[in-house]
Amino acid sequence: MELNQIYAPVSTDLIRVEESLQCVCDVEYEWLKQLLNHSLGASGKRIRPALTLLSGQFYDYRLPFLLPMATAIELMHTATLVHDDAIDKADTRRGRTTIFKLWGTEAAVLLGDYLFAQAGVKVSDTRMVRAIRLFSKTLMTISGGELNQAKNSFNLQQTRDDYYKRIFGKTASLFCLSTESGGLLSHAPDSSIRKLRDYGRDLGLAFQIVDDILDFIGTEKELGKPAGSDLKQGTFTLPAMMLVEKYPSDNPIKRLFSDRNLTQNISQAIEQIRNSSIVDECYNIAKDYCNRACSHIKGLPDIEAKNSFIGLTEFVVNRRI
Amino acid sequence: MELNQIYAPVSTDLIRVEESLQCVCDVEYEWLKQLLNHSLGASGKRIRPALTLLSGQFYDYRLPFLLPMATAIELMHTATLVHDDAIDKADTRRGRTTIFKLWGTEAAVLLGDYLFAQAGVKVSDTRMVRAIRLFSKTLMTISGGELNQAKNSFNLQQTRDDYYKRIFGKTASLFCLSTESGGLLSHAPDSSIRKLRDYGRDLGLAFQIVDDILDFIGTEKELGKPAGSDLKQGTFTLPAMMLVEKYPSDNPIKRLFSDRNLTQNISQAIEQIRNSSIVDECYNIAKDYCNRACSHIKGLPDIEAKNSFIGLTEFVVNRRI
Repeated sequence: MELNQIYAPVSTDLIRVEESLQCVCDVEYEWLKQLLNHSLGASGKRIRPALTLLSGQFYDYRLPFLLPMATAIELMHTATLVHDDAIDKADTRRGRTTIFKLWGTEAAVLLGDYLFAQAGVKVSDTRMVRAIRLFSKTLMTISGGELNQAKNSFNLQQTRDDYYKRIFGKTASLFCLSTESGGLLSHAPDSSIRKLRDYGRDLGLAFQIVDDILDFIGTEKELGKPAGSDLKQGTFTLPAMMLVEKYPSDNPIKRLFSDRNLTQNISQAIEQIRNSSIVDECYNIAKDYCNRACSHIKGLPDIEAKNSFIGLTEFVVNRRI
Repeated sequence: MELNQIYAPVSTDLIRVEESLQCVCDVEYEWLKQLLNHSLGASGKRIRPALTLLSGQFYDYRLPFLLPMATAIELMHTATLVHDDAIDKADTRRGRTTIFKLWGTEAAVLLGDYLFAQAGVKVSDTRMVRAIRLFSKTLMTISGGELNQAKNSFNLQQTRDDYYKRIFGKTASLFCLSTESGGLLSHAPDSSIRKLRDYGRDLGLAFQIVDDILDFIGTEKELGKPAGSDLKQGTFTLPAMMLVEKYPSDNPIKRLFSDRNLTQNISQAIEQIRNSSIVDECYNIAKDYCNRACSHIKGLPDIEAKNSFIGLTEFVVNRRI
């Protein structure tokens, strides 16, 4: 399934999300307008707002409340990316020059804060305190998790449990919020809200595992940045962990993490991972999470959005960007 | 009036705010705990939470809702300071080493984000969507205003109107939120909420004008950083504007702003401002805002908190730190 087929049940309302994001860019200060247009204009896949809208379709689909939540989630996602780029001193993201590169740390930090605030205003339009609270809790999980990741960069002692906890905070928590809030705002029964949340979590975990695979097997053109970027930052992802498990006494990751200037180890690690069974093993784990995601939603009403959810699990594994 | 006398009507509940901030520090990750303790432990004057609690006393004082708002406001305030220090690469704040200096940009950006999120969770405990929305709107004003300030650093073309707009965004908007939210959460009538908000705005403007004076006349010990720090950052404050107005053709500010390496102009500007009528003129403007602040609250019920509000206007002008 292509993304436009997956999004079909909510395609007109996703246009409303884009319009809503466009409205956010309509501000008094010229420079702020420019920054907002640059960060929000780079039309991404919009998976998260699509998940919120699709989740809302199983019960009482109330666009006036789902739309601000979907918009708020995309705003929060964008804010975290803008801050991440400032922290990583990244020149490009998905092939586009970053706010940090164009306007520096100050602009990136303050723009991120502004986007968080704007997200907070949008989410208050849902008028549901439970959903608003969940939204802020998720940002706590994301930033708390990122702080933990920062502390553990270039640390070889991390376990797979640490990895799953980390990618939950970094990615799956926001997928969870997307689906759970869709359930909440459409007044789904609690048991269905749990199903939606669990689907979001496992889809998000699969999504991040694939992201971590692509960082080793993608081309620079596909990734919009050089392969091996995670390793360069000292982020110990699943493929890298598997390589260390296979060759515990000596391997390029161990060498790199003990001296991060030995950057030739990055290309060696990429080579070794590409030429091993690690990529397949990682994909199998991602597929496993996708299967779990699908199993969670079995009991939900049989509507078109359910096929979209299944289609999304396939898309997430097969994507190259 | 001393601050402890001013705070007397809410002193026991301000202890609850401290406890509430302490609870925020109680987290799973050790490093995050350390960062939170460092940023929240530096017991400041807590003017903003005090304003919320005092404002709540004029009508139906509901601590279960006022307490999370007061805590959330202090958290948001702290978050903006942590981000500001990362942006300014500040070594110290009020004599204490900053998060940025101790742990770098990454820690400062992510900790600020975490504090914003925690503030968002706290504010949702007020269970009042109007108050929650006002909270996020204020963060938009603050960060949008700071972006505008960043764009205008070392720009001599700014007018006094630009200055007042800037200090509203930077400081008075949060004072406004503190008093207005206190009114909202105690179910004050709309006319009284407006009075409280206007008091907060004018008190906040006076507070920032005094801050800008102190940056020229305070000692390094009092300020916790060298005098003239604003000028060094290219921030064009009221005393500096007055100096430029008095000597439009040539003055140390003009020379510094045309070449920021000419740092000897900072001490020259400090000298000239200290030895002129500018300090008194600025204080008169601050006092004028304080008088306005007091005039707004005339119609409010005559309770002890009203004297505290009057006492605060005196404190704000007379403070040295």
